[in-house]
Amino acid sequence: MIIILKNNTQTEKRTQLVDWLEKQGLTVHISEGKYQTVLGLVGDTSAVDQDLIASLSIVDSVKRVSDPFKCASRKFHPEDSVIDVSGLKVGGGHFVMIAGPCSVESEEQIVGIAKAVKAAGAAILRGGAFKPRTSPYDFQGLKADGLELLRIARQETGLPIVTEVMSSRDLPLFEDVDLLQIGARNMQNFDLLKEVGRLRKPVLLKRGLAATLKEFLMSAEYIMAGGNEQVILCERGIRTFDDYTRNTLDLAAIPMLRELTHLPILVDPSHATGIARLVPPMALAGAASGADGLMIEVHNDPMHALCDGAQSLTPEQYADLSEKVRAVRKAVNA
Amino acid sequence: MIIILKNNTQTEKRTQLVDWLEKQGLTVHISEGKYQTVLGLVGDTSAVDQDLIASLSIVDSVKRVSDPFKCASRKFHPEDSVIDVSGLKVGGGHFVMIAGPCSVESEEQIVGIAKAVKAAGAAILRGGAFKPRTSPYDFQGLKADGLELLRIARQETGLPIVTEVMSSRDLPLFEDVDLLQIGARNMQNFDLLKEVGRLRKPVLLKRGLAATLKEFLMSAEYIMAGGNEQVILCERGIRTFDDYTRNTLDLAAIPMLRELTHLPILVDPSHATGIARLVPPMALAGAASGADGLMIEVHNDPMHALCDGAQSLTPEQYADLSEKVRAVRKAVNA
Amino acid sequence: MIIILKNNTQTEKRTQLVDWLEKQGLTVHISEGKYQTVLGLVGDTSAVDQDLIASLSIVDSVKRVSDPFKCASRKFHPEDSVIDVSGLKVGGGHFVMIAGPCSVESEEQIVGIAKAVKAAGAAILRGGAFKPRTSPYDFQGLKADGLELLRIARQETGLPIVTEVMSSRDLPLFEDVDLLQIGARNMQNFDLLKEVGRLRKPVLLKRGLAATLKEFLMSAEYIMAGGNEQVILCERGIRTFDDYTRNTLDLAAIPMLRELTHLPILVDPSHATGIARLVPPMALAGAASGADGLMIEVHNDPMHALCDGAQSLTPEQYADLSEKVRAVRKAVNA
Amino acid sequence: MIIILKNNTQTEKRTQLVDWLEKQGLTVHISEGKYQTVLGLVGDTSAVDQDLIASLSIVDSVKRVSDPFKCASRKFHPEDSVIDVSGLKVGGGHFVMIAGPCSVESEEQIVGIAKAVKAAGAAILRGGAFKPRTSPYDFQGLKADGLELLRIARQETGLPIVTEVMSSRDLPLFEDVDLLQIGARNMQNFDLLKEVGRLRKPVLLKRGLAATLKEFLMSAEYIMAGGNEQVILCERGIRTFDDYTRNTLDLAAIPMLRELTHLPILVDPSHATGIARLVPPMALAGAASGADGLMIEVHNDPMHALCDGAQSLTPEQYADLSEKVRAVRKAVNA
Repeated sequence: MIIILKNNTQTEKRTQLVDWLEKQGLTVHISEGKYQTVLGLVGDTSAVDQDLIASLSIVDSVKRVSDPFKCASRKFHPEDSVIDVSGLKVGGGHFVMIAGPCSVESEEQIVGIAKAVKAAGAAILRGGAFKPRTSPYDFQGLKADGLELLRIARQETGLPIVTEVMSSRDLPLFEDVDLLQIGARNMQNFDLLKEVGRLRKPVLLKRGLAATLKEFLMSAEYIMAGGNEQVILCERGIRTFDDYTRNTLDLAAIPMLRELTHLPILVDPSHATGIARLVPPMALAGAASGADGLMIEVHNDPMHALCDGAQSLTPEQYADLSEKVRAVRKAVNA
Repeated sequence: MIIILKNNTQTEKRTQLVDWLEKQGLTVHISEGKYQTVLGLVGDTSAVDQDLIASLSIVDSVKRVSDPFKCASRKFHPEDSVIDVSGLKVGGGHFVMIAGPCSVESEEQIVGIAKAVKAAGAAILRGGAFKPRTSPYDFQGLKADGLELLRIARQETGLPIVTEVMSSRDLPLFEDVDLLQIGARNMQNFDLLKEVGRLRKPVLLKRGLAATLKEFLMSAEYIMAGGNEQVILCERGIRTFDDYTRNTLDLAAIPMLRELTHLPILVDPSHATGIARLVPPMALAGAASGADGLMIEVHNDPMHALCDGAQSLTPEQYADLSEKVRAVRKAVNA
Repeated sequence: MIIILKNNTQTEKRTQLVDWLEKQGLTVHISEGKYQTVLGLVGDTSAVDQDLIASLSIVDSVKRVSDPFKCASRKFHPEDSVIDVSGLKVGGGHFVMIAGPCSVESEEQIVGIAKAVKAAGAAILRGGAFKPRTSPYDFQGLKADGLELLRIARQETGLPIVTEVMSSRDLPLFEDVDLLQIGARNMQNFDLLKEVGRLRKPVLLKRGLAATLKEFLMSAEYIMAGGNEQVILCERGIRTFDDYTRNTLDLAAIPMLRELTHLPILVDPSHATGIARLVPPMALAGAASGADGLMIEVHNDPMHALCDGAQSLTPEQYADLSEKVRAVRKAVNA
Repeated sequence: MIIILKNNTQTEKRTQLVDWLEKQGLTVHISEGKYQTVLGLVGDTSAVDQDLIASLSIVDSVKRVSDPFKCASRKFHPEDSVIDVSGLKVGGGHFVMIAGPCSVESEEQIVGIAKAVKAAGAAILRGGAFKPRTSPYDFQGLKADGLELLRIARQETGLPIVTEVMSSRDLPLFEDVDLLQIGARNMQNFDLLKEVGRLRKPVLLKRGLAATLKEFLMSAEYIMAGGNEQVILCERGIRTFDDYTRNTLDLAAIPMLRELTHLPILVDPSHATGIARLVPPMALAGAASGADGLMIEVHNDPMHALCDGAQSLTPEQYADLSEKVRAVRKAVNA
């Protein structure tokens, strides 16, 4: 950690700060410049509160030199992690296509879509049973019944299933779910992160709408610090002033996360844009940017089918897209 | 709800959409303009998925005419709500000063600060026992022990206490807490919102970092829909490109929320700015903007005292500020 | 234009508003719902100030039904525009690679890079002669001398040149520049937009850091309304809370602009990210998203070459990237 | 400037970087830690390109220790600047009220409003003659005729006038304008900044919608570096995800700019919110935050008067607000 002091700092205050830092077990290197003094801290600074130091009246600014995340950091784990989802490998060159409807609605629906997306190249089935909704008056999902329907679809197709868990209290219901999803709104629900950290089951962690990459990785760190190192990250758009799409898909996060962490990184173009006709170009862009997989909404109900509805693709559109995704990956990795 | 169709829409597709809407129990008024057709929906549109409609290929855009929140809306409750916090009134002209340390650290600390802030005009004591921290390696609070220390401070001073609850599983520990705080990161932890909605206890709901005012009010609605109408809102800064303060305090939200809702609205200038010396001007600005109260961090430990630390004021600074806040309120309400 | 009135509007005020609107030459259709009244305006509403109406005390909200841009709109010009840059076609299936250094520094430098990028597949040479710099103390470019060096590089290689013009006063110096660039900071320098609108020369308009797509297209409209319809758009990143890259590249803007306008749309991954090693993945993602071309910084000076410097690629990296871009385009358009 | 190198940097590359830095005339202090090496640069680093260094492959990050602005910095000019606007003092305790209509429309209008706002306590008259409009089809202002009408209003009332200049080409028309306004969209129109830097006339510089405080001050620096030190800053809202107001008024910028610079700082609550009924609370909040003045839109036309129109106050509302502003300032400065 580097602490840059303000000009004309009183010697007495500086001495008090240095004493305090040394009491924390740190070695302090002082280098005095013509216009400023810089303190270099050596030792374990992970417990030092950067915000506190930064706001001291004699401090101009503070800079952490080492990343605050460890388990998730590529520095300490240079090889790509490969996550095993019920036998399916994700990451380290293993690209995964996840597809399914926004919500599980009926056996017919979910089994139908599962078969369709499997035929179109999907390797994992997604489907919401517990639904986070902005309004308490909106449909909140079929809950336990939805999970049961997902299990049936898994049995019928052999596809592992991924579905969102919204509360640590519900975790017992998810025991045989293959991949647990933590949604964007719960990315900093630390109670839930700690609980899934106690499991030994893969977790798909979605980036929060206002999360920096560091915060995103610190949330992964919460899970990993508990001993569960099977974390898959998912970029799904951030909130900006831009209002023509639901969120702004931040694709540069893919190669940047690749540098910072060894964990696999997926892209969800459906939630990022909220508009079906933007999903194929953004899915292709995600593949081109080096993502380890794509999570895409696919539906088969008539209202959607009628009008290219919402953010979901039809199975036909998805099949067409899958083929192009394969071609783009080949072009990029050539 | 108003649906604006695109130019040159095929009659067949339009008919299918209108049929579908009517099957949802809505009356559809069609008005055809030279360049576009507008559908006006009459009936209960609260269950209609605006995103779905908006993304249909024949639809240009959709506009909700009525607010999606009801319990929280001033339309259906024109008078200001006055929330009772263990005998203390908040809202409807009753201004409240909440103060205390970021974290509860020891009996000596919390009782000392409680006495100091009471003397300086605070009416409610704040203090973190369960702490949401970005890093799993940072201090997570004294938890149950911290709650016990808050109770002691309450006994010593008579001040009601407010403290953050991070998980519905912890709620039993908070039974005799006077005012439950839901933090910014949990503003859309719907499981937690529903649980506190089942209680009959006042809740202080902080705005999420990326929450629109509508989303903020929908989260209040989650609590109120459960039957708990004792909600106090708190603006504490949003996330923007601006990086000189921790967040950007959005004070125009105060008069705007005042129009939209009957609930009391506080301002937290400490978390919004993260810098102690900006707290007094932003507290005064909050009072001038018409807030129903201020929530401010005050400390008394030597490291902070030494250097105007972090985002916390000393008791002396707080006492001075309290006086100016009173004067500003008088000036504004004259 | 649709005007939604508030509940319980006084009849008198409503009548005054309707009268005033009719005096502007509009026909007003009133449809009264149970909870609100909606006014539909028919006629030329382009001169009606939406902000003014929206803020009237009896108005809940206002929605424009027709886009405010005309020349740039695909509605009135369904075919892709193909812009001719000194014989080179851009748009409508004609993909263009623009490359060159950030600043023109010397004849040796610019001619050397020009030859290298031509060999690597670039069709237009970029290079800054007038440089917009945040600080008045930073290098402001070689100005007229830089333009002269660009002309020499054009003569040596046959590549058309694109370079930024920062002021309408400088325009005479740009007479024989093939493609005039308007930078992001000048996207709403309306004086400059009007002046280049008087020319008959292609213009590359970069999106402003905080510009919505509508504002971006309205700036194109300024140029086109003057009679100069040869506008090429360029997405180059927007400003968000994200700070790991210089800006956030908004690739969903590509397919969305494609719907809204017939103008060609390029992507500049160099300025968007500011980091050389992120340029190739973002260039490939841009190609996959359907852009009409890429504008990329390439350098050949030793300091850069030494360390993969800044946001610029080496000619070798650019050559490698060009090949992959071709492969991605083939994969996407298959 | 502090340069933090990555782990495991090759000695050779590090030597090349240090050599290069020393060739720029800098002294380089190397301090090697266990996990990283830090280079401290001593000398004039203002010409060193921070972005370039930051993106070198061996560099982890770079931190500027000294501010890049000089003339505008409080470090080199500890006393508040007091700007003289045709005899009226602004800054250093001299609070200024600026008021007037959005656009100058007629002699009757501007003289009428000028008299009304003067009676209500305004000391400077504002009014747009050249209007920056997003759409080329919107009213662009009366231009030279508008300036003439402002002169008449000045003659009738004795109020100095402030009005926006949009292009350096128009500057000759503004010769006897008392205070030149540079609008938010032109905050980084460097050609215009340089030109007004050549004048010896006070300039009101508005913050750009996406400008950091550093960029804002660098734009002031452009003017001051030209020799014109009479700059007044104006916060007028930034662009965020928030959409209930036109922009988000960033009031914490007031005390923060106060620390960074000696220049006076105003607040414009009219453009920031775009909604008349939010102007009084935000004006009072601005005064409470320590601003040196307020710039507020006031109108007197019947359409506005009818309905509390747009972002403008009536003269009566303005008179009432003025009185409260005085009271708030007294409360805050007590």
